[in-house]
Amino acid sequence: MAKEKKLVEAITSMEDDFAQWYTDVVLKADLIDYTSVKGCMVIKPAGYAIWENIQSELDRRFKETGVENVYLPMFIPESLLQKEKDHVEGFAPEVAWVTQGGLEPLQERLCVRPTSETLFCDLYAREIHSHRDLPKVFNQWCSVVRWEKTTRPFLRSREFLWQEGHTAHATAQEAEERTIQMLNVYADFCEEVLAIPVIKGRKTDKEKFAGAEATYTIESLMHDGKALQSGTSHNFGDGFAKAFGIQYTDKDNTLKYVYQTSWGMTTRMIGALIMVHGDNSGLKLPPRIAPVQLMIVPIRQDAPGVLDKAAELEAALKAAGVRVKTDVSEKSPGWKFSEQEMRGIPLRAELGPKDLEKGQAVLVRRDTREKYIVPFEEIPAKAAKLLEEIQQNMYETALAHRNAHTYDVTSYEEFKTTINEKPGFIRAMWCGCQECEDKIKEDTAATARCIPFEQEQISGTCVCCGKPAKKMVYWGRAY
Amino acid sequence: MAKEKKLVEAITSMEDDFAQWYTDVVLKADLIDYTSVKGCMVIKPAGYAIWENIQSELDRRFKETGVENVYLPMFIPESLLQKEKDHVEGFAPEVAWVTQGGLEPLQERLCVRPTSETLFCDLYAREIHSHRDLPKVFNQWCSVVRWEKTTRPFLRSREFLWQEGHTAHATAQEAEERTIQMLNVYADFCEEVLAIPVIKGRKTDKEKFAGAEATYTIESLMHDGKALQSGTSHNFGDGFAKAFGIQYTDKDNTLKYVYQTSWGMTTRMIGALIMVHGDNSGLKLPPRIAPVQLMIVPIRQDAPGVLDKAAELEAALKAAGVRVKTDVSEKSPGWKFSEQEMRGIPLRAELGPKDLEKGQAVLVRRDTREKYIVPFEEIPAKAAKLLEEIQQNMYETALAHRNAHTYDVTSYEEFKTTINEKPGFIRAMWCGCQECEDKIKEDTAATARCIPFEQEQISGTCVCCGKPAKKMVYWGRAY
Repeated sequence: MAKEKKLVEAITSMEDDFAQWYTDVVLKADLIDYTSVKGCMVIKPAGYAIWENIQSELDRRFKETGVENVYLPMFIPESLLQKEKDHVEGFAPEVAWVTQGGLEPLQERLCVRPTSETLFCDLYAREIHSHRDLPKVFNQWCSVVRWEKTTRPFLRSREFLWQEGHTAHATAQEAEERTIQMLNVYADFCEEVLAIPVIKGRKTDKEKFAGAEATYTIESLMHDGKALQSGTSHNFGDGFAKAFGIQYTDKDNTLKYVYQTSWGMTTRMIGALIMVHGDNSGLKLPPRIAPVQLMIVPIRQDAPGVLDKAAELEAALKAAGVRVKTDVSEKSPGWKFSEQEMRGIPLRAELGPKDLEKGQAVLVRRDTREKYIVPFEEIPAKAAKLLEEIQQNMYETALAHRNAHTYDVTSYEEFKTTINEKPGFIRAMWCGCQECEDKIKEDTAATARCIPFEQEQISGTCVCCGKPAKKMVYWGRAY
Repeated sequence: MAKEKKLVEAITSMEDDFAQWYTDVVLKADLIDYTSVKGCMVIKPAGYAIWENIQSELDRRFKETGVENVYLPMFIPESLLQKEKDHVEGFAPEVAWVTQGGLEPLQERLCVRPTSETLFCDLYAREIHSHRDLPKVFNQWCSVVRWEKTTRPFLRSREFLWQEGHTAHATAQEAEERTIQMLNVYADFCEEVLAIPVIKGRKTDKEKFAGAEATYTIESLMHDGKALQSGTSHNFGDGFAKAFGIQYTDKDNTLKYVYQTSWGMTTRMIGALIMVHGDNSGLKLPPRIAPVQLMIVPIRQDAPGVLDKAAELEAALKAAGVRVKTDVSEKSPGWKFSEQEMRGIPLRAELGPKDLEKGQAVLVRRDTREKYIVPFEEIPAKAAKLLEEIQQNMYETALAHRNAHTYDVTSYEEFKTTINEKPGFIRAMWCGCQECEDKIKEDTAATARCIPFEQEQISGTCVCCGKPAKKMVYWGRAY
C-alpha cells in the first residue's frame, strides 16, 4: 500500500500548483523524458501513441478535402528566409543556425526550419506556371525548431512536431475559403476527437502570424483558466507571391499572382489534453484519441482461470473494435489501478476469481469512477457504449467548465479584477485600436485571444478606452 | 501527337545512359523537385505517397513484433556524439553543425542527427534500472542529415527520411535474435511488398556500421547491374552500453550491461523501386506499394455517358478495395496513357463511347502491356486478380534478372573481366582478410556486399590471394 500511495502522492495537486501538477503528470504518465539538449524532449511510447492517433485522424480529414502530403528540406538558406520582410522579422530572432557541414564552414548559413512558408514559396515559384497548375494543396508532417528561452514539455519546446499545410490558389476568395475550411477541420477535430470545445475567430493584427494578411485561430480554455491557442490558419493574400514571384498565366492569358494560405497544428495539443481533462489522479484521455481504451486488470492473476478469461475477454473486446490491453505485470492490482488512472486510460475491467465464479467483470470509468458489474457476454457491447458516453461526458464537462469560466465584462476596473480573481476567458468590447490592446496586455498580462466569428454585443463601448466599439473580443492570459 | 511524343522522348533510354534515365524518371514521374539547398530535395505528392505506403506497411510489421514508436530530438550535443569512439569517427566528418541558437552563439555545438544511437543510449541510461525495464524495443520515423559530397535523389541526399529502431536487451542472445528478426522483416517487406528480391547476409568488418559488433544487410540488384544496400540491422553487443553506462540489476541482484541493436530503412527504397522495376516508359510500381493501382482513362470524355460510367466504375473498384482514380483532365487520351505509364500505375482502364455500347472496358497492364476486354460487371474482380498477377510477375522478373546477372567466379582474372563486362553480382570465395578486400576494391571498385547466410562452395580458394577460403561472398559495385 505504501508503494501505491507513492504513485498517487507523486503528483502535486492541481489546486496547489497547477504548473507543477502539469509537469508531474507529463512525467508520471510516462509521456516524455527530458534530454541532454535543453528545451528538447523525448516523446515516449505513451506520448507518441497519442500523437500517432492525432496524426491519423487529422490526416484522414485533410485528405478528404484534397490535401496531398509532401516533404520539404529541414534547412532554409538565410537569403531565402529573408525574402518576405515581415516573415523574417518574426522568425529570425528565434531560429537555430547551421554554419558548418562536414568539415567545411558553409558559404551561406542555413536555418533549421521554424516553419516552411519560404520553402513552399520557392517550390511554388518553380512549379506553378498555368491556371492548370492550381490549386496546390500541400501539407507536411515534420518537426520544426524555434529557439525559445523558456520551455515546457509539449507547450513550448525548442523542437516540436507538427503539420504545416501550404496552399496556392488562383483567387483571393478561394484562398479565404480554404483558410476557413481548414480552421473548421481543426475545430471539428478538437471537439469531436479531443473533446475540447473551442472558440473560432480571427486574431487581431497585433497577434497575427508574421507575413499573414489574416490569421484565424481556435482557442481553448485550460483547467487553470488560461487560454491555449490550439490551431491557426493563415490567409497570406498575395504578399508572399509578390515577394517570391509566384505567378501563373490565367485563362485570359494574363499573368497573375497566386493567393496563399498556411495552417498548422502541433504536439502542444497533447498538452491541451492534459490541461483540459486531467485531474489529481493524472491524465484523462478521451476514448477516441486514447491509444489504449480499456485496461483489463486481473485480480489474483495466479488463481486458476483468471488469465485465461482475461485473454478471452481481450479477444472479444478487440473483435468489437475496442483498443484493449491486459496488465499482466507483477504489480499489485491497486498499483495497476493507479497506473491505469495516471495514464488516462478511459475504462478498466477488473476481473478476479470471484468475478469468474459469477461470470462477470467490473467495469470502472476513468471520468466519473462509476462502476458497472457486467456479465461476460455483455462486456464488449457495454464497453463500446461506455466509451461513447465517456467521450460525450468529457466534452460536456470541458464545455461546462469553459462556460463557467467565461465572464462578460463592461468596465476596465471589472476587467482587471476579473482577470486576477477569476481566471478564464473575458468577453469584452474593443474599439479596434492597438493602443488599447497594448494597454490591456501591459496592465493585465491578458491578450486578445480572438475576435470570435459568433459576435455578441456585450456593451456599446471599448472596455479599455470607452470609445464606441463594435467588436467583441475573447481576452485571456495564455500559454 | 507531338506533345505525347515529347513526354516519352523526355526520358533518356536506360541503355544509353542509366544515370540520366534515373534522373529523368525521378523528375518526369513527378516524384521530386530540386531545391535551393544543395543535396536536399522536395519529395512531391507522387513520391511521398509511396513513402507513406512504405511507412504504413513497415510500421504494421514492426508493431506485430512489439516495437513501440517514440520521438527523440534532432540535435546531438558534440560531447554526447563523442562518447563511443568508433561511432564518432564514422560520423563526425559528415554531420551538419548548429552553432547559433536565436541571437546567441551556443556554448556547445549541436550536430543534426546523422543517426540516433547516442541519443537512444542517453535515454536508456536514464530509463533502464532493472531487468523489469527490459527489453526496450523503440523505433522512430524521422529525417536525418549526412553532409554528402555527391548526391542523387533518394539514393544519396544530405537529408533523407528513414526509420531507426533501437533496442536494449538483457542478453547477447536476445539482441542477436532481434537483429536477425528485423533483418527478416525488411527482407519479407522488400520481397512481398516492393517485389524486390534480396540477398540476406552479414557485412564484412570493413563494411560494418561504425560502432557495431556485426552488421546484417539485405542487398538487391538494380537494373544496371549495380548493387543497392537496402536495409541494415546492427548488433552492438555491449559496446555502447559500456560507453554510456547502461546497466540493469538482474534477478540475481548483480549489475549487468545491456546488449543493443539498431536497424534502419530509408527513402532510398524509392530509388530501388525505380531502378529494379522501371523501363524506358518510366516508373513501374508493384501494386502493393502503388498509391494509385488503377487509372481510369476516359476516351472522348465529352461523349454522353462516358464520365458517368467512369464514376460508376471507380466506385465499384473502390468497393472492391482497389486504389483507383479517374483522369478527367483536359489532356488527350494518348497523353494520359503516357502519364499513367510514366508514373508507374500498374493498371489502366480505357473507356470510350464504343466500350459503353458494348458494356465493356479495356484493361491494360503496365508490366506486360497486355490488354483485356472485360465486361463492366467483371471489372472489379478482374482488376483485383490482375493486380495480384502483376505483383507476382514483377517479383519474378526482378528475380530472373538478378539470377541472370549473378556470376560465379573462381579466378581473379575472371573477376576483373566479369565486373567490367557483365555488371551484376559476383559470387566468389574469400579468405577473410581485409587486404584482399581492399585490393579488390582498389582494382575493380567492387565491394563485399555481404557474406550471405546461404553459403555455397564456389571453389576452395580465395578469389584474390588464392589461399584456402571457406566464405562465399557477394561482390558488386554499389550505389
